[in-house]
Amino acid sequence: MKSHNFFAGPAVLPEQVKEKASQAAKSLDEMGGLSILEISHRSAFFTEVMQNACSLVNELLGLNYEFDILFLTGGASSQFFFVPLNILNANEKAAYVNTGTWSTKAIKEANRYGLITELASSKDQNFNYIPKGYDIPTDLRYLHLTSNNTIFGTQLKELPDTSVPIVCDMSSDIFSRPIDGSRYDVIYAGAQKNLGPAGTTIVAVRKGILGKTYRDIPTMLDYNTHIGKGSMFNTPPVYPVYVCYLTLQWLKDLGGVSVMEKRNIEKATLLYNEIDRNSMFKGTTAVEDRSLMNACFLLEDDSKEQAFLDACKEANIMGIKGHRSVGGFRASIYNALAKESVETLVDVMKSFEAKHG
Amino acid sequence: MKSHNFFAGPAVLPEQVKEKASQAAKSLDEMGGLSILEISHRSAFFTEVMQNACSLVNELLGLNYEFDILFLTGGASSQFFFVPLNILNANEKAAYVNTGTWSTKAIKEANRYGLITELASSKDQNFNYIPKGYDIPTDLRYLHLTSNNTIFGTQLKELPDTSVPIVCDMSSDIFSRPIDGSRYDVIYAGAQKNLGPAGTTIVAVRKGILGKTYRDIPTMLDYNTHIGKGSMFNTPPVYPVYVCYLTLQWLKDLGGVSVMEKRNIEKATLLYNEIDRNSMFKGTTAVEDRSLMNACFLLEDDSKEQAFLDACKEANIMGIKGHRSVGGFRASIYNALAKESVETLVDVMKSFEAKHG
Repeated sequence: MKSHNFFAGPAVLPEQVKEKASQAAKSLDEMGGLSILEISHRSAFFTEVMQNACSLVNELLGLNYEFDILFLTGGASSQFFFVPLNILNANEKAAYVNTGTWSTKAIKEANRYGLITELASSKDQNFNYIPKGYDIPTDLRYLHLTSNNTIFGTQLKELPDTSVPIVCDMSSDIFSRPIDGSRYDVIYAGAQKNLGPAGTTIVAVRKGILGKTYRDIPTMLDYNTHIGKGSMFNTPPVYPVYVCYLTLQWLKDLGGVSVMEKRNIEKATLLYNEIDRNSMFKGTTAVEDRSLMNACFLLEDDSKEQAFLDACKEANIMGIKGHRSVGGFRASIYNALAKESVETLVDVMKSFEAKHG
Repeated sequence: MKSHNFFAGPAVLPEQVKEKASQAAKSLDEMGGLSILEISHRSAFFTEVMQNACSLVNELLGLNYEFDILFLTGGASSQFFFVPLNILNANEKAAYVNTGTWSTKAIKEANRYGLITELASSKDQNFNYIPKGYDIPTDLRYLHLTSNNTIFGTQLKELPDTSVPIVCDMSSDIFSRPIDGSRYDVIYAGAQKNLGPAGTTIVAVRKGILGKTYRDIPTMLDYNTHIGKGSMFNTPPVYPVYVCYLTLQWLKDLGGVSVMEKRNIEKATLLYNEIDRNSMFKGTTAVEDRSLMNACFLLEDDSKEQAFLDACKEANIMGIKGHRSVGGFRASIYNALAKESVETLVDVMKSFEAKHG
């Protein structure tokens, strides 16, 4: 019986990616039968994987090779300080929009490096909406946004109207839809949602923006170190990068992010329609800000929570329990999740209503 | 035909570890058939893996649980600044012994944080020996050593006589022999030699030594952040940690580091004996400092290098080309390398002598 993987991250990967990743962990024909886990990162095989992965990121995100692409480690959590450390001087201003746990942490780290303003926040309503219509000063070095809030289930549908360069944490919706690369100076994302397994972080840095701060930056924290060596200054996380490469190739073969966006809208519509239709459930976020990646919902009667979790378990639905900050349920429906899994969840919700409603 | 993996790192892993790692990348029974690449790091399954891996490190290194064990990212290269950032005040002294490329880099990064002295160096002879007999001041916060020098093929056989706490980069010989845990404040090692695949870095921090600097440390660079959350403050590199866990368990089942040391001595003796016996080859390092992990050697007549590399290739020997800093050849003979592989290399050296000598 098939399992349905609704984990928020690390999250579902495409079947064929897992298949190839498993084979490569056992043995690679290209490396005389050695496993990818035990080969030099300087081997021709892996050097090509790294180069191809970087090209695919540029291509699939439509960045026109105006960015350097890095595969680093340390998660998006490390980019919270990498970004200001590398591009913000102590006397320069940056503004952050606070849409949840991760942007709150990003603001905390950035405060060490420059003049940071929290321009808007949805904390007043437990981050259940995306702030809009706030004024954006024009003298900012950058505006920091979080494109999707995994925990609270909200997503930024449209960039604010500004000429200020945007820095964006896209950890939980990168590659889920087309973006306008011209608006960004830095894009970063932990791999473990739409891209691959945990263990690598993708960073896209616009060419020409570095080298303008006056700090002495530790070698490993300097974007230029890694750009100069194609993410191979030191040993990169070979296997996580390899699995990302497989996923990127899978996405390209499927037709890229435009095709993926259509699939994601279809899956999300199916689920949100049921949340709205079903008398026992309700969504937690402003309807216009609903995430296509993480659907958060509650039972009208929360005493039935365990019963619903049990019903999900019976259908082999995994990872559906909501984050403690919101409660209830969260269905993470990333790129690689099959529509069939959403249909199964919808069926369980319908049966649950029939039985308990 | 079996391949013989002499790569310097990422390096050979035990057959049964690769077998299990490959299976887990495809599907885990414990997780309803999901792959380990797509499960939450907060799942009971992985939480237990992380805890067991940390316990095994404490146990196998004989650290008596006097250390906190971390699985971080960023490689040993990141520990070059993590260590002084976390434990050295600007007015405190630390000393480094420079035994190669990596200690040179460690010194460079440490200079940002305190009063750093290079106490001894073997740079005068291209790092082909380990300095000894140098004076060690008693007012040092720590003495930094590199236990094994992958590139130059030297290894520290005995700790210098001092009561100063030692910080040690054990990236390329950790778990290869017993150590005296009481001598260390911090031990760190990239996983990709004796421990697992690339993508995680093990750090052992003596309890009670943190919180004594006056710096404001970014959250992700503070050892205490990760200690407080059992290396799960943010998403850890799940798969690399899992494969390390498998390797640690393999090592324990074999009898631990004492048994491993005997095997390593046996393998290294076999190879160095042939290097010394064979009229066509010569070792590159001081005999008493020869590494049990990386044997560097040259041809007396270097015009025959390509011919020897071809002979190795024919025998499916991989990763034998020396690092450009030394030239010639380097056979990395880590824990997981079978004695059979060393025997194969020795046979090739003998045949090469018979044909070309």
